[in-house]
Amino acid sequence: MLIVAAYDIAITSPGGTKRLAKVAKLCSRYGQRVQNSVFECVVDDLNFKKMQHELTLLINPKVDSLRFYNLGNHYQRKVIHIGTKVTKDLTAPLIF
Amino acid sequence: MLIVAAYDIAITSPGGTKRLAKVAKLCSRYGQRVQNSVFECVVDDLNFKKMQHELTLLINPKVDSLRFYNLGNHYQRKVIHIGTKVTKDLTAPLIF
Repeated sequence: MLIVAAYDIAITSPGGTKRLAKVAKLCSRYGQRVQNSVFECVVDDLNFKKMQHELTLLINPKVDSLRFYNLGNHYQRKVIHIGTKVTKDLTAPLIF
Repeated sequence: MLIVAAYDIAITSPGGTKRLAKVAKLCSRYGQRVQNSVFECVVDDLNFKKMQHELTLLINPKVDSLRFYNLGNHYQRKVIHIGTKVTKDLTAPLIF
């Protein structure tokens, strides 16, 4: 299933820039960055729960925001992109 | 249906900050801001097309990025939020 993870990290708060770097690094282990603070992750239920748990431990819930959007398994027609930074289709066959 | 609109506007490019302000203003006509550059909009097909068209005219597609995620009509359980800036449920009855 496709999970869109979007986050706002309060970089002006103590440790904010470190949290931002850690959150981005962790998200990149689960999917691809499509915008500065938006990742698209094709994951199963187990990995989605793991990702949520790990990210929740990283952020400061008083000042940071995490949002996950579950677009399910049939997501190709639910995503529209206009402009720069066109992303790879994560599930398309790799052609060598 | 719930549309999540996420954007990255190249504010260092000529006119970037103006575009950013206009894009945010336009999105707020269609829904609510849930993160710095993420809006959640409960719209019908017609308004979604209008929104897309208006935003496409505002951005510079060479340097800016717009992404729309369509979560359909039954979206309540497809959105998970952790942390600050809890949003209002757009469709919940207003209690006076």
